[in-house]
Amino acid sequence: MYLKYLLVLVYYVALIASDHEVAETYKQRRDVLLGRERGMRLGSDVILDPYEEIVNKQLMKNKKEEMAGYVSGAETFPPGHSFTEVKEDIEKSKVYKFIRKMPKGGLLHLHDFALTSVEWLVLYATYLPHCYLCQHQDHHYHRFVFSASKPINNKECVWSLVADERRNFTDGTKAFDDMLIKSILFGNSKIVSSRGNTSQIWQYFEEYFFSVTGLLLYNPVFPLYVYEGLKELWQDNIQHFEIRASLQQTYSLSGRHSSPRTVLQQYLQGIRRFQELHCHLCRVQLIICLHRSLPAAVIKRKLYEAAHLQRMYPGLVAGFDLVGHEDGGRSLLSFMPELKGSRLPFFFHAGETNWQGTATDENLIDAVLLKAKRIGHGYAILKHPAILEEAQMNQIPIEVCPISNQILGLLDDLRNHPASSLIASNFPIVVSSDDPATWNSTGLSHDLYVIFMAVAGVHDDLRLLKKLAQNSIRFSSLSIFEKEKLQDDWISKWRIFIENEAKSLCINNTQLEMDF
Amino acid sequence: MYLKYLLVLVYYVALIASDHEVAETYKQRRDVLLGRERGMRLGSDVILDPYEEIVNKQLMKNKKEEMAGYVSGAETFPPGHSFTEVKEDIEKSKVYKFIRKMPKGGLLHLHDFALTSVEWLVLYATYLPHCYLCQHQDHHYHRFVFSASKPINNKECVWSLVADERRNFTDGTKAFDDMLIKSILFGNSKIVSSRGNTSQIWQYFEEYFFSVTGLLLYNPVFPLYVYEGLKELWQDNIQHFEIRASLQQTYSLSGRHSSPRTVLQQYLQGIRRFQELHCHLCRVQLIICLHRSLPAAVIKRKLYEAAHLQRMYPGLVAGFDLVGHEDGGRSLLSFMPELKGSRLPFFFHAGETNWQGTATDENLIDAVLLKAKRIGHGYAILKHPAILEEAQMNQIPIEVCPISNQILGLLDDLRNHPASSLIASNFPIVVSSDDPATWNSTGLSHDLYVIFMAVAGVHDDLRLLKKLAQNSIRFSSLSIFEKEKLQDDWISKWRIFIENEAKSLCINNTQLEMDF
Repeated sequence: MYLKYLLVLVYYVALIASDHEVAETYKQRRDVLLGRERGMRLGSDVILDPYEEIVNKQLMKNKKEEMAGYVSGAETFPPGHSFTEVKEDIEKSKVYKFIRKMPKGGLLHLHDFALTSVEWLVLYATYLPHCYLCQHQDHHYHRFVFSASKPINNKECVWSLVADERRNFTDGTKAFDDMLIKSILFGNSKIVSSRGNTSQIWQYFEEYFFSVTGLLLYNPVFPLYVYEGLKELWQDNIQHFEIRASLQQTYSLSGRHSSPRTVLQQYLQGIRRFQELHCHLCRVQLIICLHRSLPAAVIKRKLYEAAHLQRMYPGLVAGFDLVGHEDGGRSLLSFMPELKGSRLPFFFHAGETNWQGTATDENLIDAVLLKAKRIGHGYAILKHPAILEEAQMNQIPIEVCPISNQILGLLDDLRNHPASSLIASNFPIVVSSDDPATWNSTGLSHDLYVIFMAVAGVHDDLRLLKKLAQNSIRFSSLSIFEKEKLQDDWISKWRIFIENEAKSLCINNTQLEMDF
Repeated sequence: MYLKYLLVLVYYVALIASDHEVAETYKQRRDVLLGRERGMRLGSDVILDPYEEIVNKQLMKNKKEEMAGYVSGAETFPPGHSFTEVKEDIEKSKVYKFIRKMPKGGLLHLHDFALTSVEWLVLYATYLPHCYLCQHQDHHYHRFVFSASKPINNKECVWSLVADERRNFTDGTKAFDDMLIKSILFGNSKIVSSRGNTSQIWQYFEEYFFSVTGLLLYNPVFPLYVYEGLKELWQDNIQHFEIRASLQQTYSLSGRHSSPRTVLQQYLQGIRRFQELHCHLCRVQLIICLHRSLPAAVIKRKLYEAAHLQRMYPGLVAGFDLVGHEDGGRSLLSFMPELKGSRLPFFFHAGETNWQGTATDENLIDAVLLKAKRIGHGYAILKHPAILEEAQMNQIPIEVCPISNQILGLLDDLRNHPASSLIASNFPIVVSSDDPATWNSTGLSHDLYVIFMAVAGVHDDLRLLKKLAQNSIRFSSLSIFEKEKLQDDWISKWRIFIENEAKSLCINNTQLEMDF
């Protein structure tokens, strides 16, 4: 009789023990899998020192607090909405403020005509003498030009001096300038009205460039435009700049246009002034780019010219790219006759599309086969497992520009950005801002914020941000020697930043000090 | 002197030859890479017979014609916009019409209360006697109940007989019924107003279920509801159905509630009627599911009950799942104490989120570790390279429900759906429609259309569609014997479909006939 009870007891004990064992094994297996995935993430190989650990702890506390409201749905998640609608919300974030202060290394994908804030252009350039404005009542678009005499009116344009328009504006000078700024910026209404139709969006987008070129390409403006742009980016704590430069001709009051070499000289004027006044260790490089709509003969000639300019200014000219709406233009493959002879390093825009199997989508194949040093956007890369493998193996980084992709209609909610998968599998990426001035952003902080909060996961921490800064140096076009100098400079800036952050935290927070 | 010219000539000939060779090599390398990618795509292993080739040719002609307008931006691309806005545009497409006619195999992820069109519910069920309607003037929501006596009013609800309301409706019977249908459906205004906030969207979404359950769970309605739903799906050319069944209690006029076993019997009534009248070879299986908000003790008891029901109805009950808003509910890991003892096959919803690193996102890990037979949605899987590998290795398919993901706020433009990457890498997927009746869809055709036009690439053809049908049979929960029978039935239907299509094309188009 007792034996029966004893047997039942032994059975239950064995059952509980086996259950416990199962649970243990499950937890272990889960941890292994989870650990394997965590170890595959971009930044997982970064080791933080004790100061960085303190700073990271606070950063993640802020991130988690902010995310809690978003994940629960209690608060609107800014990267889920168009940047033009949520810019101010982002700027209130503690995480954003931290990122803004962080030394970021390089900004490697940035277009020449969206370098400097529209506000500066309006407040400086339109105040110069001889600045004419064209207003078209129907389309509300603006063109500017500096001219010794009044340009001739036509159906499209009625020209007047900006100074006269400003004086006669009923609501006053500030309202006039604000109106000008608003009319130039690529605003939300244009994005909403053409949702998902990238051809339509690109038409509006190119309007921005038509508006600003008349202002910034004026000889007395251009070097200052370059200087001011670099200064604004430097204020966002960026140390190195690679600018996609179209080398469009600058012009004088009499309408005489400069040669590409003169434009390079004007770049150098702006760069030197910036280096002297703000950052003598900062470096600037140009990636000469041509619009993909240009005729083949022009492309061939300009490529030859670009190669010549690179030989003349080897430290300044880094390589070559083709720009413009990729879906609307010629494919890289179709440029093969022009490209194949060139020895210029390539930095191609490729796969900036959400179509699959089209010529634009296949540009990714040619970018890799043409041994591009980096790929601009590469938005379609997840649809190309073989290219993904090739690019990872050969460490061809993707220049990820999340806000640009959103504004130019590829996706709405940035949580769906393909870079989330690239971050999860330690793919070499650099974060860039493409055309920040166009949508009233500056530098890299907004893009890094959306990467950190929406494209990366809730557990990604300071190690990801540090890795992205390191990548931006590693994948820059500088010579090895210059790269080392940039790295040293960045490391010293990073140390100061981290120590200051840690100290201010320790002063404000004894708990953190004790932990340390 | 001549020697000099000769040397120059030889040099240029050599240059042209080497250029030619370079071009050849480039093209070869490009074709290899492109071919490798094409060979990695889902459906690339399908071989088409001559009849299928004819049909495919016409299908791709139609697809390319339709895509041309979309890619150029001349026409609005329907899958780039909310399904509720573009349903009618989709239905005009020749590609859609083809897909609608296609024998599709199985529909494996489909919820019980969104099985049958709302139109049928309103036009049939609300016309039965004793049907009461609750109207709340502020929130415009509706509840229905069948009751022998008038239910008691409260702050939320003022009850009245549907028959009376219909008779008194000023705009007539049809307008009244249309109003009822519209008020039940999960409409566009609700989706727009809560854009990107899935918690908010799910609140509206669950309103739908509160509206319909009073109608469909009425004893005289339920078997007919099941019959009618299966008939509608069968009219969409689906042969096998796996329904996520909550087994909620049905009720009588006196308010008496039925046991789960009785509910299963009612299912069987509906199924048998459907088999007898329409398709004796069609099969239906139930995946019993519980709401993730239920208390642990209830889950445990219900799991035990589900296992019991599976033993009683082994051909009908296929397994178990947890449902409800995944982001808003408990994680799979937290259910471990209840789940670990169960021997039921699991078909978990997992990773139906665009957050990364949250408990919902990590549900994917537990779904794989708990050896789920299939994973519902798996929307977050691209952010999990290790899970992706495990699932591919063990051939755990993802039930992809693109329109559901769009409507429930995970993404806007379906070109960004993660399944595009899964299709590109031959990951095992099945396409499903989740809750089609909720958004006025039927069966699988709309979802297959968006997969074919937006999630897949422009070159994906009949082979992808055939593969998806084959996958839906291969990954069904049927026994090997039943699976073979289903497959034979599908093959014969597929042959008839293809032959009919090919013949009608050959009659209409002598060119195609000549090609054949």
